[in-house]
Amino acid sequence: MIFDKFHEECGVAGVYGDKDAANLVYLSLYSLQHRGQEGAGICSTDRHNFYLHKSLGLVADIFSNSILKDLKGDIAIGHNRYSTTGANNISNTQPIFAEINKGKIALVHNGNIVNASQIKKELVDSGSIFMSTTDSEIIIHLIARNSKKSLIEAIIDSLSILKGAFSLIFMTENSMIGVRDPMGVRPLVLGKIRGGYILASETVALDLVEAEFIREVEPGELVIIDDDGIKSLKPFEKVEPKPCIFEYIYFARPDSIIFGKYVYDIRKEFGKRLAVENPVDADIVIPVPDSGVVATLGYSEISKIPYEHGLIRNHYVGRTFIEPSQSIRHFGVKIKLNPVPSIIRGKRVVVVDDSIVRGTTSRKIVKMLREAGAKEVHMRISSPPTKFPCFYGIDTPTRKELIASTHTIEEIKKYITADSLGYLSLKGMYECVKNLPFCDACFTGNYPTMYGDGESENKC
Amino acid sequence: MIFDKFHEECGVAGVYGDKDAANLVYLSLYSLQHRGQEGAGICSTDRHNFYLHKSLGLVADIFSNSILKDLKGDIAIGHNRYSTTGANNISNTQPIFAEINKGKIALVHNGNIVNASQIKKELVDSGSIFMSTTDSEIIIHLIARNSKKSLIEAIIDSLSILKGAFSLIFMTENSMIGVRDPMGVRPLVLGKIRGGYILASETVALDLVEAEFIREVEPGELVIIDDDGIKSLKPFEKVEPKPCIFEYIYFARPDSIIFGKYVYDIRKEFGKRLAVENPVDADIVIPVPDSGVVATLGYSEISKIPYEHGLIRNHYVGRTFIEPSQSIRHFGVKIKLNPVPSIIRGKRVVVVDDSIVRGTTSRKIVKMLREAGAKEVHMRISSPPTKFPCFYGIDTPTRKELIASTHTIEEIKKYITADSLGYLSLKGMYECVKNLPFCDACFTGNYPTMYGDGESENKC
Amino acid sequence: MIFDKFHEECGVAGVYGDKDAANLVYLSLYSLQHRGQEGAGICSTDRHNFYLHKSLGLVADIFSNSILKDLKGDIAIGHNRYSTTGANNISNTQPIFAEINKGKIALVHNGNIVNASQIKKELVDSGSIFMSTTDSEIIIHLIARNSKKSLIEAIIDSLSILKGAFSLIFMTENSMIGVRDPMGVRPLVLGKIRGGYILASETVALDLVEAEFIREVEPGELVIIDDDGIKSLKPFEKVEPKPCIFEYIYFARPDSIIFGKYVYDIRKEFGKRLAVENPVDADIVIPVPDSGVVATLGYSEISKIPYEHGLIRNHYVGRTFIEPSQSIRHFGVKIKLNPVPSIIRGKRVVVVDDSIVRGTTSRKIVKMLREAGAKEVHMRISSPPTKFPCFYGIDTPTRKELIASTHTIEEIKKYITADSLGYLSLKGMYECVKNLPFCDACFTGNYPTMYGDGESENKC
Amino acid sequence: MIFDKFHEECGVAGVYGDKDAANLVYLSLYSLQHRGQEGAGICSTDRHNFYLHKSLGLVADIFSNSILKDLKGDIAIGHNRYSTTGANNISNTQPIFAEINKGKIALVHNGNIVNASQIKKELVDSGSIFMSTTDSEIIIHLIARNSKKSLIEAIIDSLSILKGAFSLIFMTENSMIGVRDPMGVRPLVLGKIRGGYILASETVALDLVEAEFIREVEPGELVIIDDDGIKSLKPFEKVEPKPCIFEYIYFARPDSIIFGKYVYDIRKEFGKRLAVENPVDADIVIPVPDSGVVATLGYSEISKIPYEHGLIRNHYVGRTFIEPSQSIRHFGVKIKLNPVPSIIRGKRVVVVDDSIVRGTTSRKIVKMLREAGAKEVHMRISSPPTKFPCFYGIDTPTRKELIASTHTIEEIKKYITADSLGYLSLKGMYECVKNLPFCDACFTGNYPTMYGDGESENKC
Repeated sequence: MIFDKFHEECGVAGVYGDKDAANLVYLSLYSLQHRGQEGAGICSTDRHNFYLHKSLGLVADIFSNSILKDLKGDIAIGHNRYSTTGANNISNTQPIFAEINKGKIALVHNGNIVNASQIKKELVDSGSIFMSTTDSEIIIHLIARNSKKSLIEAIIDSLSILKGAFSLIFMTENSMIGVRDPMGVRPLVLGKIRGGYILASETVALDLVEAEFIREVEPGELVIIDDDGIKSLKPFEKVEPKPCIFEYIYFARPDSIIFGKYVYDIRKEFGKRLAVENPVDADIVIPVPDSGVVATLGYSEISKIPYEHGLIRNHYVGRTFIEPSQSIRHFGVKIKLNPVPSIIRGKRVVVVDDSIVRGTTSRKIVKMLREAGAKEVHMRISSPPTKFPCFYGIDTPTRKELIASTHTIEEIKKYITADSLGYLSLKGMYECVKNLPFCDACFTGNYPTMYGDGESENKC
Repeated sequence: MIFDKFHEECGVAGVYGDKDAANLVYLSLYSLQHRGQEGAGICSTDRHNFYLHKSLGLVADIFSNSILKDLKGDIAIGHNRYSTTGANNISNTQPIFAEINKGKIALVHNGNIVNASQIKKELVDSGSIFMSTTDSEIIIHLIARNSKKSLIEAIIDSLSILKGAFSLIFMTENSMIGVRDPMGVRPLVLGKIRGGYILASETVALDLVEAEFIREVEPGELVIIDDDGIKSLKPFEKVEPKPCIFEYIYFARPDSIIFGKYVYDIRKEFGKRLAVENPVDADIVIPVPDSGVVATLGYSEISKIPYEHGLIRNHYVGRTFIEPSQSIRHFGVKIKLNPVPSIIRGKRVVVVDDSIVRGTTSRKIVKMLREAGAKEVHMRISSPPTKFPCFYGIDTPTRKELIASTHTIEEIKKYITADSLGYLSLKGMYECVKNLPFCDACFTGNYPTMYGDGESENKC
Repeated sequence: MIFDKFHEECGVAGVYGDKDAANLVYLSLYSLQHRGQEGAGICSTDRHNFYLHKSLGLVADIFSNSILKDLKGDIAIGHNRYSTTGANNISNTQPIFAEINKGKIALVHNGNIVNASQIKKELVDSGSIFMSTTDSEIIIHLIARNSKKSLIEAIIDSLSILKGAFSLIFMTENSMIGVRDPMGVRPLVLGKIRGGYILASETVALDLVEAEFIREVEPGELVIIDDDGIKSLKPFEKVEPKPCIFEYIYFARPDSIIFGKYVYDIRKEFGKRLAVENPVDADIVIPVPDSGVVATLGYSEISKIPYEHGLIRNHYVGRTFIEPSQSIRHFGVKIKLNPVPSIIRGKRVVVVDDSIVRGTTSRKIVKMLREAGAKEVHMRISSPPTKFPCFYGIDTPTRKELIASTHTIEEIKKYITADSLGYLSLKGMYECVKNLPFCDACFTGNYPTMYGDGESENKC
Repeated sequence: MIFDKFHEECGVAGVYGDKDAANLVYLSLYSLQHRGQEGAGICSTDRHNFYLHKSLGLVADIFSNSILKDLKGDIAIGHNRYSTTGANNISNTQPIFAEINKGKIALVHNGNIVNASQIKKELVDSGSIFMSTTDSEIIIHLIARNSKKSLIEAIIDSLSILKGAFSLIFMTENSMIGVRDPMGVRPLVLGKIRGGYILASETVALDLVEAEFIREVEPGELVIIDDDGIKSLKPFEKVEPKPCIFEYIYFARPDSIIFGKYVYDIRKEFGKRLAVENPVDADIVIPVPDSGVVATLGYSEISKIPYEHGLIRNHYVGRTFIEPSQSIRHFGVKIKLNPVPSIIRGKRVVVVDDSIVRGTTSRKIVKMLREAGAKEVHMRISSPPTKFPCFYGIDTPTRKELIASTHTIEEIKKYITADSLGYLSLKGMYECVKNLPFCDACFTGNYPTMYGDGESENKC
């Protein structure tokens, strides 16, 4: 999935009880880089002072050895962020740190609070000040305003007010607390690392630092890690879990266990089912790399159409890439993808992608394949049509920009100039995940939590 | 005045009603660089959005043309900051910006609130969160918590609670507000610039941007600048003004008008009076450059001892200067000062400095002069002995580190190994300023505003 | 291919006769980033002055819009460099520029001159000075020392002395000259771009800037591009071409045409033949991504063993990645690769890589797959055993570090702890390339050009 | 002396036989920063490898602790550079390093070779290549081309060909060699530092690192420092010394011993003599800081006109200072200087500067003083009229831009709008320096060494 699609969401990680806490969080963030490339930060504590470093850029560019050395202590939490908006953008990076009546506290957040604007308005009306535009600052304010004596009680009270998605890691002077919203929209996993514990968005973080995967933090669970060990609370009203199906479709790394399953396996199932539902007579099937690779393998397996790696991706695309001067025409997707004409030429080509957002990238890919000599181009999408924006942490365009929201499949096919277009059906998708409950709002519009009027801002 | 003395305090500036507002604030901060060299920032508004850039470093290094271009709008405020403490230091740079129930607001602050800890504690207790350790954040919280409908009323209420020194510039979407505390501890001046207005810590800022000096903002005055022009309020209880005498002694630039007088003139008076009070038979009188130059001219004029520029200062000392490896011994004051032996050799030398803090620098200077061949070294200080820390915005060491607090003049003389040591008397100092009231707490311990128990943190 | 293997060699590009010359070279270098990631540079001319910018780092990080704007003129050449050795490393980046008796000249070079040390010695003995350690500086000296009046004649004379590999692009005030050594070891292609011409290491550069591929510069050919058009010379003694077979095996991008064939096609043939020569009963075949992907597809096609993408690569590995502190053990290949256990577990796995250098990476990969649950691990290599170092532009370790130079295949199998190990045979490899002549010295030790005694330094 | 005047020339330093060699050279360059602010570099050797770091910027910004640590070895040389011209500017920073037939060699150079173009042409004609535009590269080429077996003989032969000014420090694997041209135009001093030796442009470098001043390197002397100690050669034909009088007038720091005298003493003599030759009835005499300070003290002493520090200089002017947007008018000298009106108002002011180049700055200063209320402004210059460009290392404008070259003193007075203008006479100047021989070409046009036709480029 390229360019004109969803921005990726955030990644979080935390380590408790290891003298290399900041180093281990650094490695974790590095393995979660695919969840956000615009900024990152780590906050650590030596159980007295808090140390914070955050900046715009990639994890590997933000932290140096001397910076990591300054992030002292045996507890640390970190965050990868995807978007930069507003002049005040460094203020929006995480972790956020604050001094409140319950002591010093730091927080990282993956998700989106749909009633954020309303809560913020109430807080502002009663005298809170906001120095960033992140949901996380709202959470800190709620905790600070809460009259409960204990921090844990205050956290529970505060989070109970929130509607939306949140996988959070709090850090205090003596503890690390992981929380997942009652629907469990965003993932969060728990592991054992040497003498301590680790929390992270995906299991790949645990793999890299050689931590042992214990289990997922469950929807609605609050995991408190301190010197007494781990304590688990389930203080929220129980609701049906609604994990985000898009973690399987696109976001998470294929080598991660998300919601109990390897992403690779589910993603391949999607591809298989896509082949069953949308067969086509063709010579080769190729992925839009890298996100389309696994589904394409599934498609190939069922359809018996040979898999080829017909589009080559340039991985050196960086944040700072300069568009050429205006007299050179816009290169768009060519900066990232280039076809292999000898594979494509004279062939009937099936090209598999995970989703279509605005349709402009798909249109360019079809054009590129035809110019490389494809006789036919059949686009196959390993998810249902994306018709509705996400309010739970994925940066989608507004509804009217989502091509499937305003066009039929036949119209989309014409727009992207493909010979045929097939999507995975909603029913097919659910069968791949054993008909377990998921949030499918982006396909159906059935948003599991009421959200305010109008379109919410989408934050991570 | 060098190294082991007071750190310098902050500088503030604001421009209203000029399309080059950020550019003009940039130049103003540049001319006020002597008031703080550790960080700077500018916040501007196009009357809708707020644009903010702040960083550690010197003004000329922080802002580029493209950054200034992004600071859009015709209102802008800026700040020079002197100190970097804590891991969270970028959070402590100013301007600070917040969204509150009265709209968007930005603030710069020169001074120190002595009851900050107590107010902060109350705010935190009732649910405010603190993301920096600046007094300025306290002020924003007080305004946000205030139930008054109008911003101006809320500002007045909030500032009425504060004890201490504050020269502030607020910026809202449609106005710029300058305030000086009732005692007028820190300076703040008002000028006319092309179609608009300018506020700044010192008149040198007005000189550089070719603004016309209107007058000082008066102690206890609130100046509101908006599209209707200037409005002046004096809402605070009237108290005796207590401007900081150290602005004359050391802080302000000699070419600035502070408290109605050119600093140069007062500083020269100090030197003259010092000569009257502390005569000595000597061959030459030399300054500790640059701050001692003007007083030395006064001393020379009265004493008839020839002025020589016997210590040469290296002005290229930067923030990033690297101390040589441990095997090379500590160079201390030598990095900044070097004597001219041909002037010093065989001479009885009077050396004039503005103050002595810990005494270590003075001791090194005396040693340096003796090694350059001075027959006698007589230290003269153009202010009374500094015995008490400042709680109003100057970063002094604690009382026990102030040598004059624990040693007699005779003992100090011995410590710094001078042949004689003479300070300006308090009475003499006051006569130089026509016996007008000033804050002289650093000499007398008579703090004009009650401050809490123990030693306050000193912030700018 | 990962970590402990060959470093990649250099990439070159040049554009003549387009007002966006530097911009187009920038894009070309970007598409050739896989040929060298340690530094890059561009030199341009407005037919009077020469403009040069070069630095360490990735192409996308080195050039900004304002830098590209400063690289004026309608001729430009550029270079991607792979290695940083010595304190003087910026001096070793290219293009190199010099003023000589034939005017101003700039040069980029891909390849390695095997008699460089000897020529350098003679030049130094007769008074030349060397300010870098690149072969390119030797070439400039030879041209300067040459007594021929015309630059072209001097270039021809100078290059005639060289033994080894060189794909060169020269730039003068009025021309761009491409040269390939008589054996044609390194690739160089020619294209038409809008009003002008383009030279580049690989056709992917032409694809990105939408240039039309004309043909390869032929072995021993000198292509002179100026305002009179293109002129071709073949001034060198004709020898049998010996293009580098490793361009097919690993270096070039699969979507490039190298030596007349798409790399993808040849690489897939290698995989097919590997399957024929080294069959094994297994459940899945997986690549070491990204370089092993295409050969793995070939292996799968012939063996009918299903292809899976069982190792996931993290593409965010940057130049600045920090190894964790010593108390965390060395992560090695884990930083780049992570297995998908659900695909691997209980399976007999064939893993296909393009080559084995020291064997340490292969050993880690086998271990990683076993820990992920593989029942058997069969390593297959899509090239013959690499026994000899390269002296023509590839940065190989010395002979004794090449595991295949000192160990039998059986011994290597044991070292890497695989259940079986199979290499592509030399005969098989040649059949894949229609038995055309290639340089196969790294497999056979038959170096096509005599090289000096001892091991040469390997430069790009 | 400000803005529109001479750029400053270069500074050099070298340390032999101290394990902190690079550190000590760093400190030395720091103390010589006034001789060049545009770039700096250090090259060191551990008697086998050479380590080089150079960059544009100030010394304190270029070197970090880790960079200094990488500059290994007990010999190091360094350079401060003043100018950045051409696209290739990093190539022009020094030290320059080269590998030649006599081994590895590095070089720093202060001065200017007037027959550089001619020598370069001959070298280029016979096959040398030039990768920078510095004179230093010429010197290296000459040494490399020389057929003498020994490096010292080759150096002597090569330097014998040069006409112009050169204070050089060479570094080889085992020695450091200091050379001063036969006329001794630029300074170079020798000192003892701990176990080793130091060479530097001025004695202030020795003061800072606490080295003991031994003596100046004499005009025409070659000082060879190696493990056998110091050896002195005087191989060049003896000519009358012609040290640059401008070192006394402006360049050198007042606390340096140059040509056997403290600069401060000579500079003060100039001021005294200026007062004798150009008396005027006035109320105060003020310097153009900082360079005019010492001469002003001399003027005041003789004239009995009180010295005041009437112009305040902002020392924070950095390389990166941004001129405000075009709608704000050009601030010129105001960025650096601001008058003290209370000192100036109603006064007859003598203002002392060291020289007038184009006259534009003097004109602005006079205007500034009048606007501050001066009743009369009398300009006094502590050197004779500057009528001729320098070809020996000072970056002067061309002759026609030098106002004194085309205007009488009366005309200059009118141009700068002063009430009177007086220069130090040539005779007076010489009497201040005991009528010793100096290069006075900038005043008289009597260039001591023949230089080529036309105006030479001026390099450091």
